[in-house]
Amino acid sequence: MSDKRPIGVFDSGIGGLTVLKSLLQYLPHEDYIYLGDTARTPYGNKSAEAVRQYAGQITSFLASQDVKAIVVACNTVSAAAIETVKEKAWPVPVFEVISPLVMQAAHFVKQADSNRVGVLATRRTVRSGQYPKAMSTIVKDDVSVEQIACPIFVELVEEGIWDGPFAKAAVDHYLAAWKADAPDAVLLACTHFPLLKPLIESFLPEAEVMESGPAVSLVVADALDRQERLNESEHIGECQFYCTDTIESFVELAESFLGQPVENIRQLDWKDVPC
Amino acid sequence: MSDKRPIGVFDSGIGGLTVLKSLLQYLPHEDYIYLGDTARTPYGNKSAEAVRQYAGQITSFLASQDVKAIVVACNTVSAAAIETVKEKAWPVPVFEVISPLVMQAAHFVKQADSNRVGVLATRRTVRSGQYPKAMSTIVKDDVSVEQIACPIFVELVEEGIWDGPFAKAAVDHYLAAWKADAPDAVLLACTHFPLLKPLIESFLPEAEVMESGPAVSLVVADALDRQERLNESEHIGECQFYCTDTIESFVELAESFLGQPVENIRQLDWKDVPC
Repeated sequence: MSDKRPIGVFDSGIGGLTVLKSLLQYLPHEDYIYLGDTARTPYGNKSAEAVRQYAGQITSFLASQDVKAIVVACNTVSAAAIETVKEKAWPVPVFEVISPLVMQAAHFVKQADSNRVGVLATRRTVRSGQYPKAMSTIVKDDVSVEQIACPIFVELVEEGIWDGPFAKAAVDHYLAAWKADAPDAVLLACTHFPLLKPLIESFLPEAEVMESGPAVSLVVADALDRQERLNESEHIGECQFYCTDTIESFVELAESFLGQPVENIRQLDWKDVPC
Repeated sequence: MSDKRPIGVFDSGIGGLTVLKSLLQYLPHEDYIYLGDTARTPYGNKSAEAVRQYAGQITSFLASQDVKAIVVACNTVSAAAIETVKEKAWPVPVFEVISPLVMQAAHFVKQADSNRVGVLATRRTVRSGQYPKAMSTIVKDDVSVEQIACPIFVELVEEGIWDGPFAKAAVDHYLAAWKADAPDAVLLACTHFPLLKPLIESFLPEAEVMESGPAVSLVVADALDRQERLNESEHIGECQFYCTDTIESFVELAESFLGQPVENIRQLDWKDVPC
């Protein structure tokens, strides 16, 4: 069996492209529909109610495009609105970004005999407590989870400021508490943050800095394979992009980040998106 | 005649408090209803269509509260959606923040025999071209208007990062082009930016840095007086605050900024706000 339908991927903006990039490496024969809700970015400081409303609306749209799976490439939605997404997507399988990253971290902690994990996230993800909760469920031994909310990292990434003194000042500002004594593993618990990974790594040279893209891609590949839903044709997968604000700003950053042309893109009209 | 109804003031978040602070100084006997749309902040990178939708919704809410005037304490809305606000508010008079600031700048330019004005704003306000247009309408002589979009200033202010190395790095980043050769007058064409005024002034020590609060307050006071709509009682005006996301984050910053307790505050439920 071969399921040629595309995989839907969404985020509040361009951050989820870090997950799409991994998916394209792990599952190169799949087609993708990527939606960045650039008109309402950032999600991370918004209320859970607002995030649920936005996520529900996007899921309805992706479901209407006949996707075979939905990857929630956004930690804020994964933490605050995953039930809404699953409900609206049913019977399409939904993948979120938290569990795979926590499983990867749990593995590291065990291997390295470490008991200290750091989490960098949006304010909403930090408040949700999903990372400490998932960590204590998976790792039986005591592991201390230290969280830092870094809301402006999202804006910096959305603005294309991935390097230089301004981005560096943001890293210095938010990670100051870890300068002298960093956790052994630091989870980038927002899909925007991998764009700042080189700066974070040079600020915390001793820490293992982990992102969710590769772990999520593994989980998606494995699940689709088990369900015999992989696209078994040999064609190179195609991406259809949607953004909810103007196309220009999205395309420029998306191309620079993905390292490939972003041609197949449309701006989604609010009226096209069912509630 | 004395009109005891409150004045409605709104912004995408806490930035408009810079205008409310001036209004409280110029018109201390008036009551105010302030709405910060914190669930959908920032507006400055959003499409004109989205900004019009949000502004229309807020205006309908304020009109339903029987305000006697509406002050649009947000440059992005003033530039992109003022017609929508006027239409929804009618017959309540609407005041925006662009014209008063431009008039003040025009006066300065004339006095100082200057021909170079700088504008710091959100991306949407810059794209709208409203400031250069208003300037060329008011000042007949040639004045060159140089605009810089500083979107992350809004986030910094909303996060309470008004000083220190991170805020300073943002100022260095955005104003680099003016470091060696600044315009004579620099307009803070976003109501959030006055919170960063001390940093901007120390980066541009030769420039006259102007904000819109005092100029708008003068215009509002004058217009209400002419229309015999001032509250002529001697009571100290009261403020009712609304925010669209959680109350805690708003209160803390609002109190720190206004320098007075913010007690009378409610979170507005999306369902209470008519479209």
